Amino acid sequence: MQLIIGNKNYSSWSMRPWVLLKAFGIAFEERKLRFDFTPGSSFYQALAVYTPTAKVPVLVEDDGFAVWDTLAITEHIADRHPELPIWPRDARQRSRARSLCAEMHAGFATLRNLCPMNVEAALPDVGAKHMAESRQLHADLARIDAMWGEALKQSGGPFLFGEFSAADAFYAPVALRVRTYALPLSENSRAYVERLIAAPGVREWIADALAEQDFLDFEEPYRRGRG
Amino acid sequence: MQLIIGNKNYSSWSMRPWVLLKAFGIAFEERKLRFDFTPGSSFYQALAVYTPTAKVPVLVEDDGFAVWDTLAITEHIADRHPELPIWPRDARQRSRARSLCAEMHAGFATLRNLCPMNVEAALPDVGAKHMAESRQLHADLARIDAMWGEALKQSGGPFLFGEFSAADAFYAPVALRVRTYALPLSENSRAYVERLIAAPGVREWIADALAEQDFLDFEEPYRRGRG
Ligand SMILES: N[C@@H](CCC(=O)N[C@@H](CS)C(=O)NCC(=O)O)C(=O)O
Ligand SMILES: N[C@@H](CCC(=O)N[C@@H](CS)C(=O)NCC(=O)O)C(=O)O
Repeated sequence: MQLIIGNKNYSSWSMRPWVLLKAFGIAFEERKLRFDFTPGSSFYQALAVYTPTAKVPVLVEDDGFAVWDTLAITEHIADRHPELPIWPRDARQRSRARSLCAEMHAGFATLRNLCPMNVEAALPDVGAKHMAESRQLHADLARIDAMWGEALKQSGGPFLFGEFSAADAFYAPVALRVRTYALPLSENSRAYVERLIAAPGVREWIADALAEQDFLDFEEPYRRGRG
Repeated sequence: MQLIIGNKNYSSWSMRPWVLLKAFGIAFEERKLRFDFTPGSSFYQALAVYTPTAKVPVLVEDDGFAVWDTLAITEHIADRHPELPIWPRDARQRSRARSLCAEMHAGFATLRNLCPMNVEAALPDVGAKHMAESRQLHADLARIDAMWGEALKQSGGPFLFGEFSAADAFYAPVALRVRTYALPLSENSRAYVERLIAAPGVREWIADALAEQDFLDFEEPYRRGRG
């Protein structure tokens, strides 16, 4: 099984299934395609073999069968590994976890657009500027704070539904954004961000992203250059 | 079990789980909240009891447990009804169906924005105008055409994965947009649009939408008034 991903410093969608597979100890081969969104780029050429959507991540089985889109990949992994609590075991907690993941999947456009993932960067000034200017960013963060708070209270933590699950993998890139842009959250949520950043799978992705050292101008709207 | 929905003429997300439940003969009570996106409206007040997302649809179990977001609602229904082929029975077809639904869930922004669902309306001129002006609309339709074509070829039809499944429920509002805006598709896809529009569940939603006769100015960017 192969997981096709983009640059680790930038690709928040790629991060989710990668972290999930690592956290649950499921073996896979990683294939990284360097981001290049120019029409006809080698990124798009390599991707076209596996997916008609021209987007990473894609999970490819050994015989070439491909599943695209993080949510479908997550369900595919859960389907293939009923012995692992990818989703919470309790039916209602499972439905709740899926609500939170689907909400991430289609929502939080402002957070995603204003604060793109950039694992390596520290951009607290950019975060402060956006917080001063965007009401919708406040709304996105308020919803995340409330969502995390409620899930952690119900489960008792340390992760959203107790043990690490797909829901945590889905919010791991949010934790990184909170850190990069120093976004304000309640103390409870900040503690969860710390736990998430230290969790197996997440920690490894971050280490790889920092080692990557492959910076792309079009993914750096805020930094004029590094160093 | 209650399904909380918006106006049937306009609410494409509400349509998906409603159609799914009807198509599989699962009993539920419908609760319609009239769209009003003014802050503090009775729409938002009624919704707030069930969901923190301020969006329909929401599925509410008899004891008040709520699941929001169409994809999570779909998985919740499939989880509760393992005896029904909500998703295809074959594991790979199931993963493929989920890829298609997740793609709809996060994608096709141009089609959704330029051609909002309006079951009652016939707006071929608006469709023609957008087709002349938007390359991205062409791209969205090309992807839908290819996706449907491939699924129907593999399964042999009449629906995307053979028998009617969640994937068809997810694309039912697209079929209605194709009809309202007279959007060009291959003959194969047009025949699927016709089958989808005539399918159980879909047909009933359309009949209800036509009977509704509750037209909202903010959902009518193209019509100056009716009749
Ligand atoms: N809904 C998709 C989103 C995937 C996505 O947007 N991936 C980005 C990288 S993080 C990409 O490949 N973009 C290339 C493009 O949009 O052309 C998923 O959940 O997998
Ligand atoms: N991702 C959500 C989208 C739901 C959605 O956008 N619903 C619209 C009506 S079709 C809504 O309630 N909008 C109210 C608002 O955005 O304030 C889902 O799949 O359920």
